[in-house]
Amino acid sequence: MVSESEIGAAVAEKKAKRESFGGWEYVRLLHDWQGWPRGTILAEGRVIPGYPKIGRVQTLVGIPALFHAPFWAEEKVDGYNVRLFRAGDSLYAATRGGLICPFTTDRLADLIDPALFSAHPELILCGEVTGPETPYIEGTSPLVAEGVGFFLFDLMRQGVEGFLSIEEKSSLARSFRLPTVPAYGWIDPKDLGAFREIVRQLDEQGREGVVLKENSPRSFRVKYVTGSAELADIASMTQRYLDVPPEYFTERVLRLALFLEDMEATDREGWSRRLGEAFLTALRERIGSARRGQCVGSFRCRFHSRENALRLLDSLAQIRGHEGETRLVDLRAEEGFWVLRFEKLYRSTSGFLRNALGGSLRFD
Amino acid sequence: MVSESEIGAAVAEKKAKRESFGGWEYVRLLHDWQGWPRGTILAEGRVIPGYPKIGRVQTLVGIPALFHAPFWAEEKVDGYNVRLFRAGDSLYAATRGGLICPFTTDRLADLIDPALFSAHPELILCGEVTGPETPYIEGTSPLVAEGVGFFLFDLMRQGVEGFLSIEEKSSLARSFRLPTVPAYGWIDPKDLGAFREIVRQLDEQGREGVVLKENSPRSFRVKYVTGSAELADIASMTQRYLDVPPEYFTERVLRLALFLEDMEATDREGWSRRLGEAFLTALRERIGSARRGQCVGSFRCRFHSRENALRLLDSLAQIRGHEGETRLVDLRAEEGFWVLRFEKLYRSTSGFLRNALGGSLRFD
Repeated sequence: MVSESEIGAAVAEKKAKRESFGGWEYVRLLHDWQGWPRGTILAEGRVIPGYPKIGRVQTLVGIPALFHAPFWAEEKVDGYNVRLFRAGDSLYAATRGGLICPFTTDRLADLIDPALFSAHPELILCGEVTGPETPYIEGTSPLVAEGVGFFLFDLMRQGVEGFLSIEEKSSLARSFRLPTVPAYGWIDPKDLGAFREIVRQLDEQGREGVVLKENSPRSFRVKYVTGSAELADIASMTQRYLDVPPEYFTERVLRLALFLEDMEATDREGWSRRLGEAFLTALRERIGSARRGQCVGSFRCRFHSRENALRLLDSLAQIRGHEGETRLVDLRAEEGFWVLRFEKLYRSTSGFLRNALGGSLRFD
Repeated sequence: MVSESEIGAAVAEKKAKRESFGGWEYVRLLHDWQGWPRGTILAEGRVIPGYPKIGRVQTLVGIPALFHAPFWAEEKVDGYNVRLFRAGDSLYAATRGGLICPFTTDRLADLIDPALFSAHPELILCGEVTGPETPYIEGTSPLVAEGVGFFLFDLMRQGVEGFLSIEEKSSLARSFRLPTVPAYGWIDPKDLGAFREIVRQLDEQGREGVVLKENSPRSFRVKYVTGSAELADIASMTQRYLDVPPEYFTERVLRLALFLEDMEATDREGWSRRLGEAFLTALRERIGSARRGQCVGSFRCRFHSRENALRLLDSLAQIRGHEGETRLVDLRAEEGFWVLRFEKLYRSTSGFLRNALGGSLRFD
């Protein structure tokens, strides 16, 4: 239980920020504070803990070195991280940073059965939202061909640090038919062969990777990402090439090189071609867009409430990595939904390419 | 003529810096100052003007727009920029930044016939030095298979702004048998077909590009670089991947994409493969180096004077882009030369890869 005066002090020190969603007022942590991670939500005496960062194991050799016990291998789904929870009579979805997401909150009852929260009001569902109809992601996960989907990966309790055990999570997921991330069972950290085989198959299917969760009280977990996911990230973010920090690309190229060593990849030529294409195909497309006008990202999301659609447009400016200019294209009722179409303008990418295509001089 | 008191003021304002080479004392400009560019050398009342920056035309369409008269097309050779000049009875070679280069100064008489300076002591020879035996470049230009070579591209006079005309330069180069950059003659800026054909051939031969010099009093010039040169830069600098700013790579990928549009490239798959290989082949090699020890660049240069070899090692720390740790491997007399072998340690690349290969966790 965190006191109101402590929260006030955290806000004054800019470690936390007051926010509201509809009439509901809350505070979110901008930094780790009093043992709670960034993204923790504080409201009416309740604490919705932030979802902790998971470290990346950079090469397979780290797995036997880092793990003290078998780990549960779960798929890492490519989407955005949310926490679903109940406060009073309402259900909310929070982003990683602790903002209530108007889109995910609006669609929450389409993603999971809300009956869970009647039986267990203190639970927090941690999962990934993905699909071609989200407001944050331009690519799409092979797991969701249309619309939007939710994949549970952890359960927490309000006010409590740490996660429910994998057994508790599985049991609740079964009882309430919660969609979960695909799991690949318990693996001995010395059995790298088994793990490598899982990764190889995910990589071949263009899927993102694995989260490894140790069966132990310390709740140790790490992630391992496929080469295909690195390429998908490069291709997707090249759409906004100059609106992304350059290390976004160089880090992923380096991780791909380490992945190829780990996998003892033999088709080096094929991987080289795919890496080059990830950059050049998207850049060619963007050069075409810049010739015709601007480089934008186009999004389409469906809402139950018109108000939530407008709130989403307002909130995008606050969400890290989505601060660019956003333009409403269209908002109208279609087949029982409010369909929002909007564009994000990639200003630096547009500006640079339009200058270059105009034949301007550059001193670099 | 710049007065000593003005120079003193520039040094006090950190616009210039006092340096010495052997017994010779000089001042070099760290920034543009009083109309003289960065890299200008001031000594004993003489001014060796810095070599001005040349803008890059980013797409061919800029050429007819920017040029008011036919231009002289000269090859842009991939090496390092030097100015050769005489002060008193000595000949010196200055880097772009205005430092006397111990290596190029030592080998000056091997690069050009010093008789030129007896006849024309006021001349400054501006050119590119390249080859497998330079202290700055790890790759090698296809123009110099072994040792080191000099290619003249401009002549200046001490104390005078601007360049000698192309006719004067050609005439002096002929008289003194100065090696010059290959030239492709006068081109009408509206005749993009002719220019594109020159670029296409240079690109196929892995050469760097073209400098376009307008036939007019304003001395306007721009550069245009081939896609092969972008790839060569990426492959070469990936050897020190994390010791280079990430935008070094992302800018070159973007320039390659624009080049492919300009050239109406059809073999997109081949270019993609080459781009991917530029990154992945060098990274694989570096991963191998990191497994075995450290990531270093190895250099071998030959000197007439042992003292100049030692001066070079001292001076590397001061030269932009070469500030990393340098280690003397060997310096000994061989076949009439002092042969210096040294290594540059790529500390960030080594450190990151060794950590990654050790299986360490990373929070990113």
